Amino acid sequence: MVDFRARTDVPTLTDAECDQLSERYGPLAQAVRELIDATIRTQADDTTAREVTAQVQELTERLRAGNLSEGPGLRYVVDGRRPLAWSNAVVGLRNPIAPPLVIEHGPDGRCWTDFHLGAAYEGPPLLVHGGVSALVLDHVLGEAASDGLTKPLYTGTITVKYLRGTPLGALHAEAAIYRREGVKTFVRGHISDASGVTVEADGIFITPSWARDEVN
Amino acid sequence: MVDFRARTDVPTLTDAECDQLSERYGPLAQAVRELIDATIRTQADDTTAREVTAQVQELTERLRAGNLSEGPGLRYVVDGRRPLAWSNAVVGLRNPIAPPLVIEHGPDGRCWTDFHLGAAYEGPPLLVHGGVSALVLDHVLGEAASDGLTKPLYTGTITVKYLRGTPLGALHAEAAIYRREGVKTFVRGHISDASGVTVEADGIFITPSWARDEVN
Repeated sequence: MVDFRARTDVPTLTDAECDQLSERYGPLAQAVRELIDATIRTQADDTTAREVTAQVQELTERLRAGNLSEGPGLRYVVDGRRPLAWSNAVVGLRNPIAPPLVIEHGPDGRCWTDFHLGAAYEGPPLLVHGGVSALVLDHVLGEAASDGLTKPLYTGTITVKYLRGTPLGALHAEAAIYRREGVKTFVRGHISDASGVTVEADGIFITPSWARDEVN
Repeated sequence: MVDFRARTDVPTLTDAECDQLSERYGPLAQAVRELIDATIRTQADDTTAREVTAQVQELTERLRAGNLSEGPGLRYVVDGRRPLAWSNAVVGLRNPIAPPLVIEHGPDGRCWTDFHLGAAYEGPPLLVHGGVSALVLDHVLGEAASDGLTKPLYTGTITVKYLRGTPLGALHAEAAIYRREGVKTFVRGHISDASGVTVEADGIFITPSWARDEVN
């Protein structure tokens, strides 16, 4: 859950600042995503692997040279309308382990996303790791429940049901709120490929006590 | 689920070959993990970010130059005793998005792991993404159910219950089988930090039909 309202140290950027920072760091993260894929699949020989390893280490030192952010800092910014969660493991622009998912929002707490999962997300051969499906669905259901991370909510419980293996490749995920009961928001969602639904999820999200005065 | 028994094209390596390949590719994946962390947290300026991005792209091209593995191939090897799942998103030696978890196995279908999660796995500020907890637990419960990926099983359903936020840092996870019923194996597990349990999970794993003659 993003309880950004409880924090006073999260910098608010202007649109221009957001653009500048996303142009600076977005391509870097995307380049590292492609390096991740090549790292898993390469058939390079000993010499090449050793040299590339050393060069990766040098690049890491260069990035660390200016000191690293220890807290949310630059990694977690609010642009005046919604949190950007740039370091988030699923949607983070700056996080190479995120695909990243780009979540679209509709009315009435519904959201969806079209994305591609490659070798990095593998479980059984050529299939998405079951836990990666759970990761995606936990995030997408949470986005629906929290209206795009604009309301403070945390996952209480999530149940994931696997109908069949999810092939790596082009996928779709969506979620929608189906009930509200006091501090609980109930959400259902699923992942599908071109042939249909592969994984379903049902989650209960909880409004934290510090935000409960706002629950109608 | 790892249904390696259904595949005839997975190479079996000797211990010496495994050692050689893990020494070749293990450090490369570990170097990329550290690059991932630096990429998320760097406060580098425009020039540095642009130069590092270009150099990462060159390294990716070097790794791709010898052609990439398209199928399980070198990424998924059986060492004569157990599958190594080197490209697995949670335990893969060669997969930079994996921490990787190293799973210990005890008798009676119990397993555990001690691991560290850094910035790459963040959800709310300084907390593990709830979906990453689900990813870890799905894998650890599956390892318990399948006796370290040596039995073919797939996740039928998993329920994850969040007791409190899981702080990034040093964590422990464990799982154990608590019931077997025909083709179903029931497993419970949890993640904990030094203060106690943060997330619990309960999963039902299913023996696939092609393996059911072997179910007692």
